[in-house]
Amino acid sequence: MNFKKMLQSASVAPLALKARFGLEREGQRVTLQGKLAQTNHPKKLGNRNYHPYIQTDFAETQLELITPVTDSPAELMDWLAALHDVAYRSLPEIEALWPLSMPPALPENESEIKLAELDAFEDVLYRRYLAREYGRRKQMVSGIHFNFEFGQPLIQALFAQQSELSLQDFQTEVYMKVARNYLRYHWLLTYLYGAAPISEANYFTQEERPKEPLRSIRNSKYGYRNHDDVSVSYESLTRYLSDIEQLVENGQLSEDKEYYAPLRLRGGKRVQDLKDCGIRYIELRDIDLQPFERYGFSAKQAQFLQVFLLLMLWLPEEEAADTWVIKGALKNDGVALEHPYAKTAYEKEGRWLLEEMANLIKELNLPLSAEFLDWSKDCLANPRKTMAAQLLAQSETSSQQAVASELAQKNHEQAWAKPYQLAGFTDMELSTQILLFDAIQKGVKARILDRPDQFLQLDFANHREYVKNANMTSKDSYVVPLMMANKTVTKKVLHQAGFCVPAGGEYGDITSALQSFSQFQNRAIVVKPKSTNYGLGISIFKEAPNFDTFKQAVEIAFAEDEAILVEEFLPGTEYRFFVLNGQVEAIMQRVPANVVGDGNHTIGELVAAKNQDPLRGTHHRAPLELIQLGSIEELMLAEQGYRFDSVVDKGITVYLRENSNVSTGGDSIDMTDEINQDYKDVAVAAVKALGAKISGIDLIIPNSKIPAKTPGAYGIIEANFNPAMHMHVYPYQGKSRRLTLAVLEFLFPELKA
Amino acid sequence: MNFKKMLQSASVAPLALKARFGLEREGQRVTLQGKLAQTNHPKKLGNRNYHPYIQTDFAETQLELITPVTDSPAELMDWLAALHDVAYRSLPEIEALWPLSMPPALPENESEIKLAELDAFEDVLYRRYLAREYGRRKQMVSGIHFNFEFGQPLIQALFAQQSELSLQDFQTEVYMKVARNYLRYHWLLTYLYGAAPISEANYFTQEERPKEPLRSIRNSKYGYRNHDDVSVSYESLTRYLSDIEQLVENGQLSEDKEYYAPLRLRGGKRVQDLKDCGIRYIELRDIDLQPFERYGFSAKQAQFLQVFLLLMLWLPEEEAADTWVIKGALKNDGVALEHPYAKTAYEKEGRWLLEEMANLIKELNLPLSAEFLDWSKDCLANPRKTMAAQLLAQSETSSQQAVASELAQKNHEQAWAKPYQLAGFTDMELSTQILLFDAIQKGVKARILDRPDQFLQLDFANHREYVKNANMTSKDSYVVPLMMANKTVTKKVLHQAGFCVPAGGEYGDITSALQSFSQFQNRAIVVKPKSTNYGLGISIFKEAPNFDTFKQAVEIAFAEDEAILVEEFLPGTEYRFFVLNGQVEAIMQRVPANVVGDGNHTIGELVAAKNQDPLRGTHHRAPLELIQLGSIEELMLAEQGYRFDSVVDKGITVYLRENSNVSTGGDSIDMTDEINQDYKDVAVAAVKALGAKISGIDLIIPNSKIPAKTPGAYGIIEANFNPAMHMHVYPYQGKSRRLTLAVLEFLFPELKA
Repeated sequence: MNFKKMLQSASVAPLALKARFGLEREGQRVTLQGKLAQTNHPKKLGNRNYHPYIQTDFAETQLELITPVTDSPAELMDWLAALHDVAYRSLPEIEALWPLSMPPALPENESEIKLAELDAFEDVLYRRYLAREYGRRKQMVSGIHFNFEFGQPLIQALFAQQSELSLQDFQTEVYMKVARNYLRYHWLLTYLYGAAPISEANYFTQEERPKEPLRSIRNSKYGYRNHDDVSVSYESLTRYLSDIEQLVENGQLSEDKEYYAPLRLRGGKRVQDLKDCGIRYIELRDIDLQPFERYGFSAKQAQFLQVFLLLMLWLPEEEAADTWVIKGALKNDGVALEHPYAKTAYEKEGRWLLEEMANLIKELNLPLSAEFLDWSKDCLANPRKTMAAQLLAQSETSSQQAVASELAQKNHEQAWAKPYQLAGFTDMELSTQILLFDAIQKGVKARILDRPDQFLQLDFANHREYVKNANMTSKDSYVVPLMMANKTVTKKVLHQAGFCVPAGGEYGDITSALQSFSQFQNRAIVVKPKSTNYGLGISIFKEAPNFDTFKQAVEIAFAEDEAILVEEFLPGTEYRFFVLNGQVEAIMQRVPANVVGDGNHTIGELVAAKNQDPLRGTHHRAPLELIQLGSIEELMLAEQGYRFDSVVDKGITVYLRENSNVSTGGDSIDMTDEINQDYKDVAVAAVKALGAKISGIDLIIPNSKIPAKTPGAYGIIEANFNPAMHMHVYPYQGKSRRLTLAVLEFLFPELKA
Repeated sequence: MNFKKMLQSASVAPLALKARFGLEREGQRVTLQGKLAQTNHPKKLGNRNYHPYIQTDFAETQLELITPVTDSPAELMDWLAALHDVAYRSLPEIEALWPLSMPPALPENESEIKLAELDAFEDVLYRRYLAREYGRRKQMVSGIHFNFEFGQPLIQALFAQQSELSLQDFQTEVYMKVARNYLRYHWLLTYLYGAAPISEANYFTQEERPKEPLRSIRNSKYGYRNHDDVSVSYESLTRYLSDIEQLVENGQLSEDKEYYAPLRLRGGKRVQDLKDCGIRYIELRDIDLQPFERYGFSAKQAQFLQVFLLLMLWLPEEEAADTWVIKGALKNDGVALEHPYAKTAYEKEGRWLLEEMANLIKELNLPLSAEFLDWSKDCLANPRKTMAAQLLAQSETSSQQAVASELAQKNHEQAWAKPYQLAGFTDMELSTQILLFDAIQKGVKARILDRPDQFLQLDFANHREYVKNANMTSKDSYVVPLMMANKTVTKKVLHQAGFCVPAGGEYGDITSALQSFSQFQNRAIVVKPKSTNYGLGISIFKEAPNFDTFKQAVEIAFAEDEAILVEEFLPGTEYRFFVLNGQVEAIMQRVPANVVGDGNHTIGELVAAKNQDPLRGTHHRAPLELIQLGSIEELMLAEQGYRFDSVVDKGITVYLRENSNVSTGGDSIDMTDEINQDYKDVAVAAVKALGAKISGIDLIIPNSKIPAKTPGAYGIIEANFNPAMHMHVYPYQGKSRRLTLAVLEFLFPELKA
C-alpha cells in the first residue's frame, strides 16, 4: 500500500495532524539536596490502586505521572504541567523530582532500593521478579513514554483511499509500518534528545561501568532491556504476537508485558488483546527526560515526534521487515554509545531524514513554523547542541549531580510559588483550578468539557458528575439558582419562611420608584438594580436621602437594570456564610482595602509592600487583588486628610476603599471559628428554605455576640448560587478552608470511605 | 383614639394606601340562553374538597370564584379575570355565568333547586338547614364579597402613634371602628353600586313579591338575611362574640357562621377564633354583581371601597355603638327599597361623605386621579347614573332577562376568543399563562413571585414547587441546563454516550477557525456561534462553500459570540421531541411560513387570510406568529419568480421563508403519532444521557420510515432546557398536547391520584 500517495491525497492531507497524545513521565523522588527520598509514596495522593494520574513505577521512590489522552501537544503539556504541580505539592515540602533519566546516587547495597509498596500482590511479585532478573539498579532509570494515535478523521480518510482491508486491519497495517520504520530510524531521536550521558554513584558496579560520557546510557546496551535471546518479529502483528507468546511459553519472558522495546504496539488492556482489537496506538518508550524542560518534555518535542511518525508512514521500507528492524537497532545502539560531543556516524542519513520531514511538511501543507526543523539540523552539524551535550557541558563546570539538584530546586520553587494555581490551567477560574487540583490529587478522573466555560466532567469508578464553575453541580436543583439570581424572589421566599430580610419594594419604572419615596422618608436605605451583581448602580444611604438625591440614585440604578429595589439599609458587619449540604463550611468577613501605618513609610509604599504578597494578583486569578492607587482611592484618602505620600502613625489602619469587595483590594478574613453556632444555624436554615445545597449567603450582623434570635440580630442580604471558593481556601488572614475538597467529597462521598 | 389625627401624621399618611385585597364572586351557571344550568359542577375543576379558587356556594349551579389575597386593586382584578377565564373554559361550552346578583328564572318548584353536591356531609347538612330555614330561592342570590386588610406598614405606623394598646388589640380597635362606621354609612354603596332592581320568575312567590323595581332587592329586607330577632352588638369585639355565642346557644342561629351581616369581622378560621387572634381583616358582603363589568367588579370600585374604608376610620362616631349601627341599617334598608330612578332620601349625607372623602384624599395626599369621585357625585345628582338605574333602563327596552343573557353571551365569547390566553396575565409568557391556567383549574395554589421573570410558587396541600418559565423546575439538576446551554458540551456528552451528533470543531478565534477550512473542504457545513440561540449568525452551506464564503460565515458567527462551531450539515427534516420524565410527550415539525395558492387570490391576500387565524399574533403572545410581508419574504418569493401580488395555481404551496421558525410565521405541525417508537427511544435515551428530566431535543431525520438504528438515520442538533410548550398545546395542525398539564402532574404526581 502506498501510504505516501494516500497521505498526499487532497482529502487526507488537511487531516494529517489530527492525532491524540498521551504521556507517562517517570521520575525519582529526591530531597532538595538531590538524595534519593527515604519517604514512602505520599498519602495525600490517595490510593495507588486506582489512581489514574499519579502512580509508582518500579521503586517506591519512583513516581509515574500519567496524562489522560489529549488532542494536541498543547493540551498534553497542560496536563503534564498540572500533574507536576499536584505531585510536587503532594510531596513533603523538602522533596522534588529528579530531572534526569539516570537516577541520582543509589544506595551502595542494591537491596536498599525499596520496591514500590503496592497493594496487589501480583504487582509486587512482578517487581520482585524484575529486580531478580535485571537487578534493581537498572530499573531505576526514568523516561518519557509517549503514546501516539493517528486521529480518527485521518485514519478514516486514509482508509477511504483503499478497499482491500477492513478498517481494523488497515489501522493495524498503518501502525505496523510506522513501527518498523520507527525502529529503523529512531536512532535520530536518540541523537537529538538522548540525555543520559553519565551515571551517578552505584548505578554501575565498578566492573560493568562503561567509559562515560555516552549519548544515552538508558538507550544503550547499559540501559534496562530484555536479554539478548529475546527477539520479536515486526513483520506482521500475527508474527509479533506469536513470537511473544512463544517467548513466554519458553520461559524467556515471565509474561507478555516483560517484552520491552523502544516502541510498544498498543490496543486492548493486555498484549494478546491486539489479536482481537488490532493496534490502536503506539507507545514510544525510548525518550529520555529532558533535563532543561520543567516537565521533562516539551510541546515542541511532541510536535517533532508527531511529524517524525508521519514520516515513518510516508517513507518506504527498503528491506525485509526483520533485517530492517535489526539494522535500526544496531544504529541506535551505536548512537547511544557515541560521545555527546562527537558527530554521529549516521549524519548523512540524519540529514536525509530531516529533508524528508521538510518535504512531507511542504507537500502536506502542514501549518508548522519555518523554524520547525532548525534545531535538529543544527544538532546534526554541531553535536554540542544536542541534549546530551548540553547536559554534559553544564555538568563539566560543577557536576551532573549539582546541575540536576539545581534544576530540581528550581522546579520545586516554581511549583510552590503560587500554590493556589494549577500549572497548565492558569487561564481557568481559580476555584476551578483548585478543584481540579484536588480531583487530580484524589485520583478523580477529570475531563475538561469546555475550558473557557469552566465545565468539567469528573469520574470516579462508575460514578460520573459534571461541574461548572467549581460548584455548579447536579446536587442543586435547577430552579434554586434561578431563585437566588432573583433578589425579589429570594427575599419573598426567605420572608415567608420567617427569616429577616430588609423591607422594601421592587419597581419596574422610574415613576413608581419615585412615588415610593414618601414611604422611605427619614430612613437609611439602599437603592439598587434588581439583577446585577457586581456592585454596579448601588447607592447606599446610611442617612436618609432627600428627594433629589433619591431620584438620582433611582436613575443610576435604572441605568443598570429594568427593575430596581429600594430597601431599608441594615447597619452591621457583612459575613459570607458558605453553606454546603446543610453545614457551614466557612465564614468570611471582607475588609475594605487598607494598610496599617508604621510611622515611616508613605501610604503608597505600604500599598506596594502589601501588594508583594503572592496571594495578590489581578483579574481574579489570585485569591486577593492588588490594591490600586487610583482616583477612587485618592478621593477616599482625601476625605480622611491623607494623600498617597502621607506617612501614617504606627498602628493606624488607613482604608483606601469604602466597599469591602476583595476585587477592589479588600482583605478576606476567615471567621468560621469566631461566629457562634446560632448564626450558623440561621444560615443553614435559610439556605435550606431556599432549597439549596451549595450557597454563599450574606448576613448583616450588627453584633455577633448577641443571640441570633434577638429581633434585629441579623438581616439576610442575598444568597449566591455560585459563591467564590478560592478566597476561603487562601484567605488573607485566618484559617484556610479547603471548600473545593468539601465540594468534591460532597459529589463523591465514596472518596471519604 | 383620634384615628384621623394619627392618619394625618407624616409617618403614616404616605402609607395610607398600603392594603391587601381579596374577593369572592358568586354566580349562577346558565345556558347561553340564560336558563339555569342543569349540569353538575364541572369535573375539569378537580375536587371541590380542596379547590382554593373555584368552589360551589349554596346551589350546585352557583359557582364561587375566590381570589387569593393580593396587594393592589390591579392584582386583585388580574386574579378575578383569570379565575373567570378558567371557570368559563371549564364549563360545557354552552354555559356562561349569569351576570346579575338576582338569579335567573328559578324552577317553579323550589325543591328542584339542587343543593351543592359536596363531599363533606356537614357541608351538605348546613345547606339543607339553610334551605329549610330561609328557603332555597333566597339563597340563590349572588354577590361580591370584598375582603380588605389595612397593610401591615400602615397598621405599624398607626400603632406607633399610641402606646395604650398591644398591637393585636390596636388592630382590633381599628377594624371595630371601621365596621361601625361602615354599617352606619354603607347605604351610600347600596345607592351607587346596588344593582338588583328586578327579580326573575319564581324568586318571589306571588304574595311576597314587592313592588319592583328597587335599588337592590338583595340588600333589602327581601334579600337573604337573618331573622329579625338576630341582633349582634358591634360595641366591642367581646360583645360581638358573646352575642353570637348566645344566639347559637339559644338556637336562634345553627352555628356562628350563620350570622350574616353586610360586614363580617375576620381573623382565624372560625368566628370564635377572633377571641385569640383579634380582627385581621374585614369582609364586605353587600356588594351586588356589577352587570356591565366583565367580571362583576372593577379595580376602580375596589379603589373606591378602599378610600371609603379609610374614611370610616377617619370619621368620628357620633352616637353610641348600637344606636349608630342600627341607624345605618335603617338607612340602608330604605335606600335599597328606593326606586332606581329616584333621588335618595339621604342625598345630603351622601354629598357630605363624598366631600369628606375628597378631604381625606387631599390631606393624606393620596395619589388618586382628579376624576376619582366624579361618577359618585354625578350619581347623587342624577340617580339615572347609578348601577341599578342603568340596568333598569336597559331592561326597559327589552327585558332584564334579555339584557343579562346578552351580557353573559358577550362575556362567554370573550372568554373563548383566545383560549390560549389567561386573562389578567396576558403579559406573561404564553407557556406560563397556560400552566397557570392548568394550576388554577386543578386547584393548585399559585403565587406569582416575579411576574416579568415568570417565577411561580405552586402549592398543593403541603407540597411546594417553584417554576420559572413554565418548565424550569426542581426536577432538573442545576448542571444539566448549563450543559444544554453549551452546544460543545452537549455534543461531547452525547457523543461519548454513543449518539450521532454532527462532526465538527469549536474555535475560539478567527485564525484557528479559518485554518480548519481544509478539513471541511468539499463538505456541506454549518457555521454558527457557540452560544446564541435565536438563529443569529448561523450560515448553512448545503453545498460546500469556497474559502471566501467560509471566511465571511466565520466572521458573521464571531460577530455574535466569542467562540463558533463549524459542523457538518445534516440533511433531513428537523423534529422537536419534547421529552418529559423519560417519555416523549410531543413531537413537532415546523414548516417555514407558507401559503397555498387557490388560483384566485394574490400571495399577499392569502397571507392576510392566513393571518386571520386567532392562533396567530405577535411577540410570542400567541402560539403562532403573523406571516410578515417584508424584504426577506420578498426576496424569497423573487427567487421563486413570485411577487406579493402574484396569483398562484390552486394547491401550490409557496414558501415565504427559508427558516422554519415559528417566530417568523412558520407552521407548527404535531407529529407525535406519526413518528415511530424507535426514534422516540433515541430521544428519550439522549435526554437521559444528558441527565435531563425536561428537554426539547432536536433531531434531524432524513427519512423517519427507516429504522433509527440505521447509520445516519438521525443526527442530534441540540437539546433545549426551556423548550417552548405553547406551540405543542396549540399547534397549527394536528393534535393538541397539553404539556403544561403534563409538567404540572410531573411536579405534583398526587394530582393524578
